[in-house]
Amino acid sequence: MKLYVDSNYLSPYAMSVFVGLREKGLSFDTILINLDKAENYAPQYTGFSTSLRVPAINDKGFSLCESSAICEYLEDCYSGVALYPQNPADKAKAREIQAWLRSDLMPIREERTTDYVFRKPRVLALSAKAKVAADKLFLAAEQLIPLGSNSLFTQWSIADTDLALMLNRLIFAGDPVPARLVEFATFQWQRPSVQEWVKLASKY
Amino acid sequence: MKLYVDSNYLSPYAMSVFVGLREKGLSFDTILINLDKAENYAPQYTGFSTSLRVPAINDKGFSLCESSAICEYLEDCYSGVALYPQNPADKAKAREIQAWLRSDLMPIREERTTDYVFRKPRVLALSAKAKVAADKLFLAAEQLIPLGSNSLFTQWSIADTDLALMLNRLIFAGDPVPARLVEFATFQWQRPSVQEWVKLASKY
Ligand SMILES: [Ca+2]
Ligand SMILES: [Ca+2]
Ligand SMILES: [Ca+2]
Ligand SMILES: [Ca+2]
Repeated sequence: MKLYVDSNYLSPYAMSVFVGLREKGLSFDTILINLDKAENYAPQYTGFSTSLRVPAINDKGFSLCESSAICEYLEDCYSGVALYPQNPADKAKAREIQAWLRSDLMPIREERTTDYVFRKPRVLALSAKAKVAADKLFLAAEQLIPLGSNSLFTQWSIADTDLALMLNRLIFAGDPVPARLVEFATFQWQRPSVQEWVKLASKY
Repeated sequence: MKLYVDSNYLSPYAMSVFVGLREKGLSFDTILINLDKAENYAPQYTGFSTSLRVPAINDKGFSLCESSAICEYLEDCYSGVALYPQNPADKAKAREIQAWLRSDLMPIREERTTDYVFRKPRVLALSAKAKVAADKLFLAAEQLIPLGSNSLFTQWSIADTDLALMLNRLIFAGDPVPARLVEFATFQWQRPSVQEWVKLASKY
């Protein structure tokens, strides 16, 4: 198995797949794609990547991109830790969360890049738009995370990691975040597979 | 089953779920959410919708949003026409396509709104950015659709509908699109469940 990630280890979606591979206990080679040098537009990448984005995997000749599709593929094809809940309703909510975090909340993703999570940049104030997006995130997260729990479902899933990443964009920048959500994100961030990525990212 | 769609029938993601429900042969009530009147921020919607966007479904009290998650849920829980390929590799590619079309190609989505697909607005020129996105779309679509075929996989899947919608944003605006992709989109657009949505949309 080959995993293609950005050479700065800043893609939250690359992290998601990295965590998925580790949780599955799969061995893989990590190939760094330098996005600043447009290596994602080089023929060896465009030849198999639909989106020309990271992450992508190549599993014995089968190429796949889009982090949520990759996590689903790992779940369908490999044993190891389950990346998704087993019952259909919880699995549906995990997918809802993954899809939502990848297609919405753009002001947070732009103003609180993962630099805020993996590096320590100077903090700029949030725009009004981003504050609205943050309130929307908090409302949804409070509804989704059961009271008294630090996990979305009865067991860990990759949606926990994705949601913690999104919350940490704000938490690590010092933005006000409800205490219960800080607790959730702090707990999820301690997962060894996540910490392994954090350490890789901190080196660059 | 309840289906929540925008009252203008312009959401491509609402169309995707509508097609999925029809292909599954499920009966459902359609509830129109007027986004111009911010009905998606009213308590009866915020109470169950994670994203406050359309579409959403409510299936015997179970609420779910994000169109790709809803299609997966319908596939997991209901028989009828398969919405996804059965073999893991093709299923993974279908998911890749759905995830990609929902999170990338923003200049096309902005400059070629679904008004161009479902109405007949005055056509404005594409920006350079949107032309780059269109070329990226064409490259990927040409790689994904097997030569001599008008379907992505051996049987129809919801990814065919989603890809046809994205291509039709450009085709219906009169933008240059490779002939093979026009053929694919034209063929996919004739699917009765798709045409039913097109007729609903044309009324508003
Ligand atoms: Ca992705
Ligand atoms: Ca670097
Ligand atoms: Ca959606
Ligand atoms: Ca109208």
